[in-house]
Amino acid sequence: MFSDIEIAQKNEMAPIADVAKKIGIDENCLDFYGKYKAKITMPELRKFQKKVLDPKNRGKLILTTAVTPTPAGEGKSTVSIGLGDGLNKIGKKAVIALREPSLGPCFGIKGGACGGGYAQIVPMEEINLHFTGDIHAISIANNLIAALIDNHIQQGNALHLDPRTIIWKRCVDLNDRALRNITIGLGGRTDGVPREDHFVISVASELMAIVCLSVSISDLKKRIDNITICQTYDKRAVRFGELKCTGAIAALLKDAIRPNLVQTLEKNPVFVHGGPFANIAQGTNSINATYSALACGDYVVTEAGFAADLGAEKFMDIKCRTAGLSPDVVVIVATVRALKMHGGVAKADLSTPDTDSLRKGFENLAVHIENISKFGVPSVVAINKFVTDTEEEIELLKKLCAEKGSKAVLCEGWGKGGEGMTDLAHAVVEIAESGKSKFHYLYESHLSLADKVRVIATEIYRAKSVEFPPSVLKKLREYEERGFKELPVCIAKTQNSISHDPKLIGAPKDYVFPVRDCQLYSGAGFVVVLAGDIMTMPGLPKLPAALNIDVDDDGKISGLF
Amino acid sequence: MFSDIEIAQKNEMAPIADVAKKIGIDENCLDFYGKYKAKITMPELRKFQKKVLDPKNRGKLILTTAVTPTPAGEGKSTVSIGLGDGLNKIGKKAVIALREPSLGPCFGIKGGACGGGYAQIVPMEEINLHFTGDIHAISIANNLIAALIDNHIQQGNALHLDPRTIIWKRCVDLNDRALRNITIGLGGRTDGVPREDHFVISVASELMAIVCLSVSISDLKKRIDNITICQTYDKRAVRFGELKCTGAIAALLKDAIRPNLVQTLEKNPVFVHGGPFANIAQGTNSINATYSALACGDYVVTEAGFAADLGAEKFMDIKCRTAGLSPDVVVIVATVRALKMHGGVAKADLSTPDTDSLRKGFENLAVHIENISKFGVPSVVAINKFVTDTEEEIELLKKLCAEKGSKAVLCEGWGKGGEGMTDLAHAVVEIAESGKSKFHYLYESHLSLADKVRVIATEIYRAKSVEFPPSVLKKLREYEERGFKELPVCIAKTQNSISHDPKLIGAPKDYVFPVRDCQLYSGAGFVVVLAGDIMTMPGLPKLPAALNIDVDDDGKISGLF
Repeated sequence: MFSDIEIAQKNEMAPIADVAKKIGIDENCLDFYGKYKAKITMPELRKFQKKVLDPKNRGKLILTTAVTPTPAGEGKSTVSIGLGDGLNKIGKKAVIALREPSLGPCFGIKGGACGGGYAQIVPMEEINLHFTGDIHAISIANNLIAALIDNHIQQGNALHLDPRTIIWKRCVDLNDRALRNITIGLGGRTDGVPREDHFVISVASELMAIVCLSVSISDLKKRIDNITICQTYDKRAVRFGELKCTGAIAALLKDAIRPNLVQTLEKNPVFVHGGPFANIAQGTNSINATYSALACGDYVVTEAGFAADLGAEKFMDIKCRTAGLSPDVVVIVATVRALKMHGGVAKADLSTPDTDSLRKGFENLAVHIENISKFGVPSVVAINKFVTDTEEEIELLKKLCAEKGSKAVLCEGWGKGGEGMTDLAHAVVEIAESGKSKFHYLYESHLSLADKVRVIATEIYRAKSVEFPPSVLKKLREYEERGFKELPVCIAKTQNSISHDPKLIGAPKDYVFPVRDCQLYSGAGFVVVLAGDIMTMPGLPKLPAALNIDVDDDGKISGLF
Repeated sequence: MFSDIEIAQKNEMAPIADVAKKIGIDENCLDFYGKYKAKITMPELRKFQKKVLDPKNRGKLILTTAVTPTPAGEGKSTVSIGLGDGLNKIGKKAVIALREPSLGPCFGIKGGACGGGYAQIVPMEEINLHFTGDIHAISIANNLIAALIDNHIQQGNALHLDPRTIIWKRCVDLNDRALRNITIGLGGRTDGVPREDHFVISVASELMAIVCLSVSISDLKKRIDNITICQTYDKRAVRFGELKCTGAIAALLKDAIRPNLVQTLEKNPVFVHGGPFANIAQGTNSINATYSALACGDYVVTEAGFAADLGAEKFMDIKCRTAGLSPDVVVIVATVRALKMHGGVAKADLSTPDTDSLRKGFENLAVHIENISKFGVPSVVAINKFVTDTEEEIELLKKLCAEKGSKAVLCEGWGKGGEGMTDLAHAVVEIAESGKSKFHYLYESHLSLADKVRVIATEIYRAKSVEFPPSVLKKLREYEERGFKELPVCIAKTQNSISHDPKLIGAPKDYVFPVRDCQLYSGAGFVVVLAGDIMTMPGLPKLPAALNIDVDDDGKISGLF
């Protein structure tokens, strides 16, 4: 048994120029970052964008999502990558589009985010560590915005910015709980104006959301201009554009908006670009990466963060709406182990066969299957096989899915790569080509912001009603009065339950969904609505993954998972 | 008249592989970052290091330094780059080694740091903005160290770290005064342990100093292990190695320790790598970049930050000592304008001819000429020509230098590129080949730390004595008792005067040099001694350079100087 990084390091990569050639991208249309990573040039990106304007020129769009996460893990990226390889294995021109990993989880609890086993993207160490610098660029641009705001106040505060109202937060791409609540500007007259501040992890920043939604530098600049940074003392909302430094921020991000190309272990093309969180932001790779994949591939496998209630809903209602996309099929990843946990089994007992708990935990998957159908998109269940799964359990899971009208396919990408994913590939192709998808949004843009929340909470989260504090209703009305009524909403809640309460595993229903706060992301173009305690700055665990990572004198990294 | 960025953008660059070939570096020994930037591979770097072990295999080492900076500017980088081009112009194989620019000054007051006019390094926008990500890697590695320290305390504090004694600071590569003095860890039990903290600009961090002094990944790891992070409650000094995460930090820096290759406007090779401040740190590019240049070129032009009292002294006593280097000639950059300011002329009046003030301000240059001779190295003065300089002023300056036994050469690199630098190139070759350099350190390693400070302050800064607070003497003795007596000292003081007091322009003497504090950089391998108020986190000015910077839809940047 080899570890993920050992498998990745044993693999011989193809030069990325050769991988690009397979999907019709010439070497001249790549900016190389070493031999195995490249960014698409701006003219080529524009060519892709123009091509996909006509839906007939697009590949089929396959979205991978999952059941509600448990400590057992579900392996969504592994399935997405394996499915891409499986599609290529059965002779289809398939391209994968994924998010790029944050350094926070990498040194924290989760490790890397490049798939696993024989379904990985490579070079995994470089993708996991600095990659092509996109997240670093976003972090420094985010922090330059913050420094410019504080400097405006420091230098006389001509715009009368109220330091108590600054909602733009600094960021760092690490898990660093000590930066959650801080006071800055201490020390005296020359050292800034004292105020409360908060760092978020870079991937939870509005700027990450903006970069992933921007299709051009002008689009990026318009969004940066529109960021709401704070209020004046007389309560006027202030846009960042008023500080007249938008060009400098965009200059820092000029390369970060262009997609990166890498490969799977089986040398198939993967666009890895942008990594917004799936609670506070849209949770999916950049629009530019999806456009590029749709322009180059006949089939595009992409994924959305966390479970279908968070990532898939945002993919449909935020990303598809902004980008004019329309998914042809959704793959819902489930594992026997995760469903048993939803059925009440403790993690330590997961290896014991237990069809009763599986049957009970299936309720969670059933909700997600139903939810996807509410967008008019057909779905297929991918059973990501673990060595401890029994045949009886797998057969039961297939039967339960069939009873819900959904096909379930066993996947062995982790152990066998694309070869273990051909069944799912065939199933996905059949559905995608059937024309069954009648995609529509969950809610229309003209609904009030509060009603949009009500639709998502009742239809997707299965709450019986939504409780809004009066202060939130007032803020939502203010956003509407400022002209933001048409925006989609982005609900930030726990990923560990379909509800707002992480303890409610399985399929909670008949509860009241308690909204806590809201925030306008006028740059990204959505309204964040918070329910429960949302982590925008994770912490490190007692034994962080950083303890295991090492590098030898040749630069070879070990202990990265 | 074109701006620097316009000149740079009109220039057609050679592929960096062709530039590398000119100095015998094969394409296979480069990791490309686009077509015009590359990192040297680890095996090639080792080859260079092995070659320069024998001084006979090294090129001649030319150090560029300058008079004490004034608001008039002196153009040290412009002279260094122009000299490299001038040496190539007269048929010598010359390589340049420079520091990489910080983003702080770039968006603050100073602008970029790639030379000026027709003596520039390119691609200047990319070198000035993210370059190959070295500083981003250092920033995040620095902040991961901080997060791991705070997490150790959070998770039970097994080592009994005293939060009041943490000297490891977080960093960001920006001018952000509001982060100078902060409190972190507020909010409650799950949000860290409250304590005071401070951000420094990344280039002032000990980790930047470490990366620039590390010749291999093992060397890097040893230095990271040895970083003093804080004390325990019973006052034992704690090394970062005790947290057992050194491998993870080194993994983040595995590429950052390898030199970057770019080119001048005249397509000559330049290693641009590492950018430590010249007050709190050693102020010169990485040892690996200097080794690489010495292995590839017959002549190597490098520079040290600020004036000769700061940068050159540290170059000699810290970098040369650590790396076994020995400069053959020092170029001291001066301008008529800067010397007139040292003679008391206001900035607004600099265009008025004024030989009296020039004569008076020459005192500053005279001190630096004498100082360089104290290291046994011959020097030559480079008069960086400005359009307002009169012939009479230039002749007077040459005459004054001659009276000090120093040749002064007029330089027109800014206006004419290498063609305007051939006189200096000939002068430098003549001195370098003369064998006149009898380089020695200013002080021996066996002196006590306090005596090392006394030697520098009296010999170089021209103080009559040094005043140490008892607390500093105690700390210095403690460092000695812990085994750090042999380390060199790195004095952090203002760059605007030869003394500790920025108001004392010209050639101050007969004053008391007041030490304020000291700090052990046990990872980098020197003791920082602070005098006066040192800025380790600059602030943005009222009208930051960020106001002028823009980028168009093709990614072309404007307004960057």
